[in-house]
Amino acid sequence: MAYIQDIATHEGEQVTINGWLYNRRSSGKIHFLQVRDGSGFIQAVMSKATVGEEAFTQADHLSQETSLSVTGTVRADARARGGYEIDVISLEVHHEAHDFPITPKEHGVDFLLDRRHLWIRTPRQQAILRVRHEVINAVRDFFNQRDFILCDTPIFTPAACEGTTNLFPVQYFEDTTAYLTQSGQLYNEANAMALGRVYCFGPTFRAEKSKTRRHLTEFWMVEPEMAYANLEDVIELAEGLVEYVVGRALDRRAAELNVLERDTTRLEKVKAPFPRLSYDEAARILIDKGLPFQHGTDLGGTDETVLSDLYDRPVCVHRYPAAVKAFYMKPDPAQPDKALGVDVLAPEGYGEIIGGGERVADYDLLVQRIEEHKLPREAFEWYLDLRKYGSVPHAGFGMGIERVVGWICGLEHVRETIPYPRMLYRLYP
Amino acid sequence: MAYIQDIATHEGEQVTINGWLYNRRSSGKIHFLQVRDGSGFIQAVMSKATVGEEAFTQADHLSQETSLSVTGTVRADARARGGYEIDVISLEVHHEAHDFPITPKEHGVDFLLDRRHLWIRTPRQQAILRVRHEVINAVRDFFNQRDFILCDTPIFTPAACEGTTNLFPVQYFEDTTAYLTQSGQLYNEANAMALGRVYCFGPTFRAEKSKTRRHLTEFWMVEPEMAYANLEDVIELAEGLVEYVVGRALDRRAAELNVLERDTTRLEKVKAPFPRLSYDEAARILIDKGLPFQHGTDLGGTDETVLSDLYDRPVCVHRYPAAVKAFYMKPDPAQPDKALGVDVLAPEGYGEIIGGGERVADYDLLVQRIEEHKLPREAFEWYLDLRKYGSVPHAGFGMGIERVVGWICGLEHVRETIPYPRMLYRLYP
Repeated sequence: MAYIQDIATHEGEQVTINGWLYNRRSSGKIHFLQVRDGSGFIQAVMSKATVGEEAFTQADHLSQETSLSVTGTVRADARARGGYEIDVISLEVHHEAHDFPITPKEHGVDFLLDRRHLWIRTPRQQAILRVRHEVINAVRDFFNQRDFILCDTPIFTPAACEGTTNLFPVQYFEDTTAYLTQSGQLYNEANAMALGRVYCFGPTFRAEKSKTRRHLTEFWMVEPEMAYANLEDVIELAEGLVEYVVGRALDRRAAELNVLERDTTRLEKVKAPFPRLSYDEAARILIDKGLPFQHGTDLGGTDETVLSDLYDRPVCVHRYPAAVKAFYMKPDPAQPDKALGVDVLAPEGYGEIIGGGERVADYDLLVQRIEEHKLPREAFEWYLDLRKYGSVPHAGFGMGIERVVGWICGLEHVRETIPYPRMLYRLYP
Repeated sequence: MAYIQDIATHEGEQVTINGWLYNRRSSGKIHFLQVRDGSGFIQAVMSKATVGEEAFTQADHLSQETSLSVTGTVRADARARGGYEIDVISLEVHHEAHDFPITPKEHGVDFLLDRRHLWIRTPRQQAILRVRHEVINAVRDFFNQRDFILCDTPIFTPAACEGTTNLFPVQYFEDTTAYLTQSGQLYNEANAMALGRVYCFGPTFRAEKSKTRRHLTEFWMVEPEMAYANLEDVIELAEGLVEYVVGRALDRRAAELNVLERDTTRLEKVKAPFPRLSYDEAARILIDKGLPFQHGTDLGGTDETVLSDLYDRPVCVHRYPAAVKAFYMKPDPAQPDKALGVDVLAPEGYGEIIGGGERVADYDLLVQRIEEHKLPREAFEWYLDLRKYGSVPHAGFGMGIERVVGWICGLEHVRETIPYPRMLYRLYP
């Protein structure tokens, strides 16, 4: 038994591949069987002369996604994708598939999403999922190598910390309502006070009614947090992370990016340091370009697209108006109406992939901010404790995995970046 | 700036440690400051002769969890925990903590759980969280090294696949109810048909009203699934995983296990292969021991404790009655009333850490099992598709992370194995 991904180590040997038929074409005396086994795709060449009349005829009708085991000899062939083919000696059919609904022709996206459990068998979707695997593992390796401790933050949270509009409520046994986490950050801050440098990495939930190409209701986010750190530390960490993750995808998933026909020269330019724009500079650019942008408001999706189209690397937009950012963002001492925060926008119009900054460390200021934002103080008592017992400057950020995968793969919509996307009208399969 | 964990590389050098005061004792002319920075603990020795009268007196009143930076020279000292001390040259206080509630004395568990965000600063809780970090990363490395593809399964699931009793319902926008996942397995099976060998690793949810030392409502589970695999493959994979994870904890978290006073000789015995017991053999043992166990029923917590106390390694109990196991478990052809499933019980009375087996691959049998279990067929149409289009034998398992961490750390209760445990009456902080 061998896996297609390891086929080069079996040249000249007889192997058995357990897999599925992806495609087939035949001449009178030869079947060309495209076989996939989950680890790759390979062409198995079945000649009547070798397998005999009966076996050859049996293979005549084999249909897409029939499960089968192919035994044969591995032969190098420069013309073959992957460099090898298999000369079939025998073939065992396990289960015939009839009328597999996703043929190599074009299908509408709703048709495909309804059949997501089958759609993921196709080469393009497999390639995306392998890039996703690589991105996630690269992220974890990046933080582990820097001695960050993984500290999972809870999914069930007790209070609607930032207003209930975008939260999913859960009936928690008889009398309690829990809310699904939107971000692990507040807990991350407690963890950083304990363990210094931490990260959480899990699913997060937003009940936004946005139907855009950048939104899912359930998505994965990595969030590092560092004690004794400031905005500059956050920008450097974010730059290092993005450069590393893109580099890993280029290094280890070149074949998949090729399947996706991704222009990798664009990705090769993603090297730190990234250009930086203050919010004020960004606003001036947008206004100069004639966009209907109002200074003092948050950037919208279109604004991000325009800005991120200006550079061949991600761009760091920093010091947004404090008024448009979360209550826990530290004001810039040099201009207190600005927050010490940063958003990293991916190039090629992909927009925000990272948001973060330095947090308010002062107890009284944090109480004031909670009151200004009309938030329920009692829900934040534990969070205020972090400013009561040995408060320190600290900072961190969050990076959305699906947006990063979408950008690296060059996709139009994040719905293909996760095995089972959840959206406003999409909860199946 | 240096981290305590790297202090050995700075011997003889002057360093600054940014951290918190964990403990302090003083003689007339020397303060012994126990400083922690999240990466470790170290003793900083502050002598009046070196720092001068004023600085020395200022340090007189410093209280637990005050945040401070200590600058001084690193000196090897065989008597010191960790082998090094710091001779203080100067000390900067950032924020004084007053009356930190968790003192080195004993506290009740509810008191501590209410202050979980502060409790995690203590040496014992830090050690547990570091072991958890190691276990999770070891699990991921194990599967990545074997070319399994990480494939995240959804948290929001559309139907109550195995009955609603233990599910948390979520209001999904206006008219829909979603349920939080109990297991990624059904999706894993679809993913294995696409990618061959996959795993998912995320939070799972059970609304069980169990108040036992083994239950959380929110816990993390890793679930591998393999196409073209059977029960034997699952047992071997599970053995390999458990041996590897325990070995990593012993290798890389010896200091933490020492803090936890774990008897590591017990863990060193965890080498594959593990003893195996059929359900029938296990039942006989329990009945012979005079336990009130009824042949044909599932094992209870006490039964698992008794069985797992018999061996110095984990024990694999296989071929449970099909009637007590899930509908998707493949019947044993040799004895169709038994399921081709296995539970791995951790030793020292820790009980089940892994459950898995071979799945039903036959379409008609699966339809029949769904009907027998009175499950809503329409919810399983996509799952049935996997038996319609190139069905193959496949198998997998799930391993609960918190139980593994609890066992490796030698804890009495899983509530300490996760940063913010969620239980029947516990949703805060």
